[in-house]
Amino acid sequence: MKIGILGAGQLARMIALAGYPLGLEFVFLDPSPEACAGKLGEHLVGAYDDLSMLAKLAAKSDVITYEFENVPAHATEFIERRTNNVYPPSNALNVSQDRLNEKNYFHDLGIPTSDYWTVDTFRDLKLAVFGKNYPFILKTRSFGYDGKGQVFLNSEADLASAWESLKDYACILEAFVPFQREVSIIAARSVSGEVKYYPLSENLHKGGILRVAECRENDHLQAQAEDYVSRLLESLNYVGIIALELFDVDGKLLANEFAPRVHNSGHWTIEGAETSQFENHLRAILDLPLGSTAAVGNAAMVNFIGGLPETADVLAIDNAHLHLYGKSPRKGRKVAHVTVRTESKEQFEESISNLKKLADQVDES
Amino acid sequence: MKIGILGAGQLARMIALAGYPLGLEFVFLDPSPEACAGKLGEHLVGAYDDLSMLAKLAAKSDVITYEFENVPAHATEFIERRTNNVYPPSNALNVSQDRLNEKNYFHDLGIPTSDYWTVDTFRDLKLAVFGKNYPFILKTRSFGYDGKGQVFLNSEADLASAWESLKDYACILEAFVPFQREVSIIAARSVSGEVKYYPLSENLHKGGILRVAECRENDHLQAQAEDYVSRLLESLNYVGIIALELFDVDGKLLANEFAPRVHNSGHWTIEGAETSQFENHLRAILDLPLGSTAAVGNAAMVNFIGGLPETADVLAIDNAHLHLYGKSPRKGRKVAHVTVRTESKEQFEESISNLKKLADQVDES
Repeated sequence: MKIGILGAGQLARMIALAGYPLGLEFVFLDPSPEACAGKLGEHLVGAYDDLSMLAKLAAKSDVITYEFENVPAHATEFIERRTNNVYPPSNALNVSQDRLNEKNYFHDLGIPTSDYWTVDTFRDLKLAVFGKNYPFILKTRSFGYDGKGQVFLNSEADLASAWESLKDYACILEAFVPFQREVSIIAARSVSGEVKYYPLSENLHKGGILRVAECRENDHLQAQAEDYVSRLLESLNYVGIIALELFDVDGKLLANEFAPRVHNSGHWTIEGAETSQFENHLRAILDLPLGSTAAVGNAAMVNFIGGLPETADVLAIDNAHLHLYGKSPRKGRKVAHVTVRTESKEQFEESISNLKKLADQVDES
Repeated sequence: MKIGILGAGQLARMIALAGYPLGLEFVFLDPSPEACAGKLGEHLVGAYDDLSMLAKLAAKSDVITYEFENVPAHATEFIERRTNNVYPPSNALNVSQDRLNEKNYFHDLGIPTSDYWTVDTFRDLKLAVFGKNYPFILKTRSFGYDGKGQVFLNSEADLASAWESLKDYACILEAFVPFQREVSIIAARSVSGEVKYYPLSENLHKGGILRVAECRENDHLQAQAEDYVSRLLESLNYVGIIALELFDVDGKLLANEFAPRVHNSGHWTIEGAETSQFENHLRAILDLPLGSTAAVGNAAMVNFIGGLPETADVLAIDNAHLHLYGKSPRKGRKVAHVTVRTESKEQFEESISNLKKLADQVDES
């Protein structure tokens, strides 16, 4: 059985590493010849909207999936015309590609969000903020990631420069909600409709980039998060792993965005859950029974951004599990993550603290 | 960093899967073009004693290791002349390749074994058994594995036929000791001499082939096993994972044999230990800090021999982790193993029982 993946970055790499033990083989389409998953299967070097390459990928694959959501809609539709086995479904990608559609979709499903307004002109922007309390965030509707395409508005004085930087894009203005925590819920839904939820991840961002994600078993907001993500899964007739990012505002969850793919905040599941998000993504799209999503002890993940520590320094930390992506370090680039998994809470705190220090030392974000 | 491996079977495959997250790449030498690790790196197709291929492997590799012990001595020495980074050391392979040398080596280190005698002629065989109690096992000194090259002797009536079947080989006769259990200890020793021991595995063989290996945390014979394997590690100046197989005879351990490599009885460590034997083998030969060998809950491994179950039937078993080797099923061939890892002992017993049934159904050994 051969799985085709659009993209050959670290997410595709970790999917492939989870897939070999299931007897799977892989073919990737990625424009970069150096893409880091390329060594784990056949690598077709080509653009995501190169129809001849997409046709080649479809011909070589039994099932096709994505490692990221910004695949052009016509590419997805082109593949879907060639094979029925494309998961997650293209409508999930379409919705998530546009922050406005995504927020509207949340609202239609009764999933609360912060207030938001469409902004196509400077006049729209001025009208949206009029008479309301700052701060806001102005975001491009499409192609934003890791904090890119976002400007924070603290007061009216920021309006003009914010507009100047994003005026070439269709935008959305969002009210900034003072939240206690950022959390995400990772869930899996199979072709047959079996659904499993991972324990909540509590996420720490800096400069718009995820730094730390910690498994929160038995969190008091687990049921609320499961309710919201289940609405998404059913409504989209979703297949695969989905990640829903949420703000915890006084015990009420507001949806921020969802990712129709395996997600950085779920990387701790490789060692920290009975079955990793990568394996469950494959089980889901192959309509195999989903694996247990239960946490195995204490688990958290720390990202390494831009720079890499010495391997020996990481492995000297108790119960640290290193995941290098095989990418050369570059400013702002995610090049590795490390999971800590322990039985003892004290050992966990100590290892995580050492790991964060190491990540800060090499941080080039 | 590129690791060269002699052999590209399932052990090399699992070493490679453990190595990618450490940022490693792999090159394999294996005579079979279909060897199942081949997709996880560069595969040099050639015999283990093909000096030009060995030179090629050495030139491409930063460190070289083995997935099996029956590499011809002149091949090992040839590589060692080309690079200092060959682990485990060739003397470990030399000792383990010959059951007589191995038993003598155990004795020199004060590691007890059952009684044994050299058998080069039929007269040797008759003299050895004279006046002693049956049963015995006649074994070829070299190249035996999975029960091959062994004949059980229940009485004098078996002598002639046993000799007839093995007379072309140098042999060793061993007294058969009625044991309560077969156990093995897996240990790792790094270039710097750091040593870690896994919890004992309790092993169930049938027809000379390992069927089930179960992690025995806090076994009362752990210290005795660690003592014996530590003598081997120090004496051989060993680097890498070693497996020492032992018989438990009324609470006293007798050494049977050792394998200078990752071992089937340690496959449960992938999910059932904090760090797998495959990752610790790599850490050891790269002189990185060794990872914790602590068990994570209840863990056991069941082999699938000759035939394969439906993937969905395996994954429907709670906490079953499938490891397909990508080999086509053939009588007597190890084609997969499944680990069960649980927190609850009841769930463990139930899953293992279901798994054994599945393994028995497809058994073609």
